[in-house]
Amino acid sequence: MSKPHILSFESYDDWDSVPMAEAYDVHQFPASSNPMDLPEKVRNDIKAFAFKGHAHLGADIMDAFPNLGLVANYGVGFDTIDVAYASANGIAVTNTPDVLTDDVADLAIGMLLALSRDIVGASDWVRSGNWASSGAYPLQRTISGKTVGVVGLGRIGHAIATRLQSFNTDIHYFARSEKDTPGWTYQSDLVELATVADIMMVAVSGGPETAGIISAEVIQALGPDGVMVNSARGSTVDEEALLQALETGNIRGAALDVYDNEPNIDPRFAKLSNVLLQPHQSSGTIETRQRMGELQRQNLQAFFANKPLVTPVN
Amino acid sequence: MSKPHILSFESYDDWDSVPMAEAYDVHQFPASSNPMDLPEKVRNDIKAFAFKGHAHLGADIMDAFPNLGLVANYGVGFDTIDVAYASANGIAVTNTPDVLTDDVADLAIGMLLALSRDIVGASDWVRSGNWASSGAYPLQRTISGKTVGVVGLGRIGHAIATRLQSFNTDIHYFARSEKDTPGWTYQSDLVELATVADIMMVAVSGGPETAGIISAEVIQALGPDGVMVNSARGSTVDEEALLQALETGNIRGAALDVYDNEPNIDPRFAKLSNVLLQPHQSSGTIETRQRMGELQRQNLQAFFANKPLVTPVN
Repeated sequence: MSKPHILSFESYDDWDSVPMAEAYDVHQFPASSNPMDLPEKVRNDIKAFAFKGHAHLGADIMDAFPNLGLVANYGVGFDTIDVAYASANGIAVTNTPDVLTDDVADLAIGMLLALSRDIVGASDWVRSGNWASSGAYPLQRTISGKTVGVVGLGRIGHAIATRLQSFNTDIHYFARSEKDTPGWTYQSDLVELATVADIMMVAVSGGPETAGIISAEVIQALGPDGVMVNSARGSTVDEEALLQALETGNIRGAALDVYDNEPNIDPRFAKLSNVLLQPHQSSGTIETRQRMGELQRQNLQAFFANKPLVTPVN
Repeated sequence: MSKPHILSFESYDDWDSVPMAEAYDVHQFPASSNPMDLPEKVRNDIKAFAFKGHAHLGADIMDAFPNLGLVANYGVGFDTIDVAYASANGIAVTNTPDVLTDDVADLAIGMLLALSRDIVGASDWVRSGNWASSGAYPLQRTISGKTVGVVGLGRIGHAIATRLQSFNTDIHYFARSEKDTPGWTYQSDLVELATVADIMMVAVSGGPETAGIISAEVIQALGPDGVMVNSARGSTVDEEALLQALETGNIRGAALDVYDNEPNIDPRFAKLSNVLLQPHQSSGTIETRQRMGELQRQNLQAFFANKPLVTPVN
């Protein structure tokens, strides 16, 4: 029996590509980004995408595959996928939630601690020999006793808040509606949240609904002693306003895993000493990436077996 | 009325030295480390030390001050102070517990996350432009779901365990006796603890009782996939055994804030890529250092007012 045909976007680790190739006839999305560079027969054969990456996936690509029935996304965020168009054309979309929640929340906390305690600068201080030659490292800032504003209380925001509660912080959160929480304070207004917060943790989904919600006004309200951690999507923050606030000291610092134009980020970031920069690695552990790949393949398998999808989006 | 005379060791920030000078006639411990370099009258006048630092404070120094009644230590650890000798000679010793617990636990967690997710290397990756030119950063390792072995369940060990519990880890601990915990597993044997642990957090006090307890055998038991965080004292770890294990890959990594010979640490550390090095900055925040100085002065004040000491050690 011949294997089902799928289209793979970007590259996969061996632990994913080997089982994928065992189960499917895997075609690679053309480097040209033009699906018409694939032969017509192949485009007709392909019934599912193993999608990955942050390039836009819209009608222009989906239309080239008349028998496409599933876009199985590798990742929890699907803001680059035109889900509305997929739904309207009977194409199912799946993602890989839950399996990466812990890692994403962990890195957000690690980024906050690394920023507040300047772990990177202190590491350089030791490795360069400055500790021995020049003495103690400059004092940094504490996080206990501070007020945290968590922006978005989905799976990841909740995991971030739960962790930060154990650090003796006071948790406030912004969400579309008040949630059932262990005593956290709901704020329906982001400027209000930023005003009370010393630390702002951005944990909303990407997409049009959240684009630019961390506006110049919100950043201004966070204030010169405030810090921000963004491990959600670059699009949620007005990046120009953030850069200006960092450059002028209108906020104390920021820790960023995501940016407007990844990986070609604005070169002004690298000139700043009050930012911690990470290369979009929130879910970047061996353990979690293996689980993400497994879940992506479980969705592919369910689709080809005509069973209910494991983690459907639409 | 003339001010009481005190002897100050090492330097203090203005927020400490100004109020100290308002209340006391402050003499500085000689740069020679020889107390006899102070005039006899000054040595007779001094009734209390504002002690700081990690040089040994024993009989040789205390004996030079016949009217010494208090050693007020700035810091929670007092392993460098000969408390037995002080007690035998009617000299009280105080420290600054509690006020630094949160910061020390926070940095321990920050170090664990920075090590496990290689936050320092990933930061360099972005700042050097490698992300744009060479692509995604290598995958790192998760901490959720792992078994943590906390060595010592005093104030700081407890704070570390409480935080790590919110990271969905399984907490085991070593202590002199079993404690009342929220379901953490007691291990009376350090080799046993290291055998079950993926992550070892060292949080015991320094001093002869804990010297070298993280032995070659314990490190061996932690194993090639294990990591260790030490924010306690360098003396608790067999540093030569740790260096060898790191150099040979017999453990996966270590994050260290303390060392045998601070700040002139073994140059072999800086050659390793599987260690995160911090310059003994666990309590190094503005907020906490201010509270430590206040508590040290509260003890001095209580002593000179013949009131009960706030945080006595002996």
